[in-house]
Amino acid sequence: MSKPLRHVFVCTQNRPPVHPRGSCASKGAVAVLQAFWAELQKRQAYEKVSITNSGCIGPCELGANVLVYPEGVLYRGVTLEDVNEIFDSHLEGGVPVERLLAPKAVW
Amino acid sequence: MSKPLRHVFVCTQNRPPVHPRGSCASKGAVAVLQAFWAELQKRQAYEKVSITNSGCIGPCELGANVLVYPEGVLYRGVTLEDVNEIFDSHLEGGVPVERLLAPKAVW
Repeated sequence: MSKPLRHVFVCTQNRPPVHPRGSCASKGAVAVLQAFWAELQKRQAYEKVSITNSGCIGPCELGANVLVYPEGVLYRGVTLEDVNEIFDSHLEGGVPVERLLAPKAVW
Repeated sequence: MSKPLRHVFVCTQNRPPVHPRGSCASKGAVAVLQAFWAELQKRQAYEKVSITNSGCIGPCELGANVLVYPEGVLYRGVTLEDVNEIFDSHLEGGVPVERLLAPKAVW
């Protein structure tokens, strides 16, 4: 793939169910990743946007966490219902989705 | 972790040995990732730099691939011997390491 305008990293870190930190995978992150990939294909936005799974980004208790560069915008608690809005507003529109931003205390 | 000045994504994608695309993992990427983490600890650079493992970034045949944001600089063929230089020159010095840059045809 060529250098994208925006690059989305979806944390898919997994941990055992009893682990005290929890994990993004236990909060539906793999389905969120697949929804981003499906939306990318539907929009045929490969020249503008890349979607990549990643390891732990940090605030596990707030997952699923989704990080967008080059802005360095971290979304927390992302669900399947948020993917379309992130694409419309931020990835293609350039305007981050305020309601999903991680708090300044963690990012 | 807090928002870093620079965020390093080390592709650790793995594939079966006979897979035609190969993979970064088969080219030593996991050791490279661990070397970045060790260097981060040694330098106590946690406030400035984050290191995260990632899935496939694209040019598998050129791995191990290492992507640095916010600049969106992709390094290819990264080995253990390159980690210190990338830290000195780019992550802490702000000057990308020219000799390791992926060619424009792929990024």
